[in-house]
Amino acid sequence: MSNTPNSPKNVSPQALRQAIRQGDHKGNTSGFCPGFVQCNVAILPADWANEFLQFCQLNPKPCPLVAMSSQPGQIDMPEIAQGFDIRTDVPSYRIFRDGQFKEEVHDIQEYWRDDLVTFLLGCSFSFEEALLADGLDVRNISQGKNVPMYRSNIACKPAGRFSGDMVVSMRPFKAADAIRAIQICSRFPSVHGAPVHFGDPSLIGINDVHQPDYGDAVDIADDEVPVFWACGVTPQVALEQAKPPFCITHSPGCMVVSDLPNSRLAIM
Amino acid sequence: MSNTPNSPKNVSPQALRQAIRQGDHKGNTSGFCPGFVQCNVAILPADWANEFLQFCQLNPKPCPLVAMSSQPGQIDMPEIAQGFDIRTDVPSYRIFRDGQFKEEVHDIQEYWRDDLVTFLLGCSFSFEEALLADGLDVRNISQGKNVPMYRSNIACKPAGRFSGDMVVSMRPFKAADAIRAIQICSRFPSVHGAPVHFGDPSLIGINDVHQPDYGDAVDIADDEVPVFWACGVTPQVALEQAKPPFCITHSPGCMVVSDLPNSRLAIM
Repeated sequence: MSNTPNSPKNVSPQALRQAIRQGDHKGNTSGFCPGFVQCNVAILPADWANEFLQFCQLNPKPCPLVAMSSQPGQIDMPEIAQGFDIRTDVPSYRIFRDGQFKEEVHDIQEYWRDDLVTFLLGCSFSFEEALLADGLDVRNISQGKNVPMYRSNIACKPAGRFSGDMVVSMRPFKAADAIRAIQICSRFPSVHGAPVHFGDPSLIGINDVHQPDYGDAVDIADDEVPVFWACGVTPQVALEQAKPPFCITHSPGCMVVSDLPNSRLAIM
Repeated sequence: MSNTPNSPKNVSPQALRQAIRQGDHKGNTSGFCPGFVQCNVAILPADWANEFLQFCQLNPKPCPLVAMSSQPGQIDMPEIAQGFDIRTDVPSYRIFRDGQFKEEVHDIQEYWRDDLVTFLLGCSFSFEEALLADGLDVRNISQGKNVPMYRSNIACKPAGRFSGDMVVSMRPFKAADAIRAIQICSRFPSVHGAPVHFGDPSLIGINDVHQPDYGDAVDIADDEVPVFWACGVTPQVALEQAKPPFCITHSPGCMVVSDLPNSRLAIM
């Protein structure tokens, strides 16, 4: 949203995916293709996919499912992007074996298997854009930082081998702006939806709001309250704890850039 | 909502208005006719009505207009109640002259004038019912008290001779319930809509949340935050300050009971 019309980030999703596929764009996608939905990625063997799907359905705030393969081995995803290939169109992937991070790669053609199922989950970029468009100050953006994230004590509902506590992201607001942010984000349930908490961090198991577990600390003014959203790091932590024998995710910040306008995710 | 089906309060709006007209019901209407919209009343001479209308339109949260006379002197209001007569169908009225309360009466036929314009404003009963229906604890109801109300330092937008600070009502909630309450109330802009503030009362000029300016104090638990809504007492205070030569309001708690289901006020 803060891009000028001539910013190099103002490319079409198709053009960016083409550059990614050709190996010309290997880094993060934050701020690219403003107005279009970007997604977290989780790729699992079919015998783990049903439980992960159930985990997403039971925990829609941290794990909002935007799209998934209609059958194992499927490499395209026509409902979210034209000509998409999950094996080549993400800037950076992380390979996990038995829950352990093994390596970072920019192409997973050699890792691909006919039993792999792809899950695309909504991410906070979409709702941050809606907050900015309404004139709100999104602190991590205005301070040029990664959003601060924390392990909370809010338990996710377990599904088979998947469980864990919710990871939350935090953005500080004045109360009236927080109320507006709750209204705006309620329209977007598939990108984490309304916040899960505000105010006293200790009530959700956060000891020090200035010491995030992931990302960067941001300033909180005296007349502001911290507002906490369910975060897409939650499913990654659940995956690490469940330790499937094989699993692929995107690298942090290096998302699937879809052809879906953010407004298409609004439920009303 | 807490009425049993056999409660004497479970009467139809038509039956209650008939009892009011006959002088058989002169008290407050709280809890009567569950499911139906009740309204605050302000009746003004035509040469004050345009400014009051503008005040309502500029301050829709404290002054949400549900209906008004289509011309001066009109006594019915067919869009909100069948066979309604504003002169006889409110349990108790207050007569003001030059902004000063003069007397309480149960019938205003002898005060009626051809230049009077009636304004019906939404009231919190409707959104409290929606909160209760969602399973939330509305503290003033569960403690059997009047809702606590406070003069805030949030200035209303002035319109002609009408101005003043917003009066707010307060209900305490845990943060997650407050977020849910914000979502629910956002659907009902014509009954005060979303809250205007939560958390630190001093940020909106309230020195002691346990000392309300109107109504009763309610308990606030350690893990709860006070949540503040714009309140229908605001236009009454603006009327007292503007001092129109003549004006009639309902007595507190003694509302117009309409035939409109509360759900009809939901914008979605």
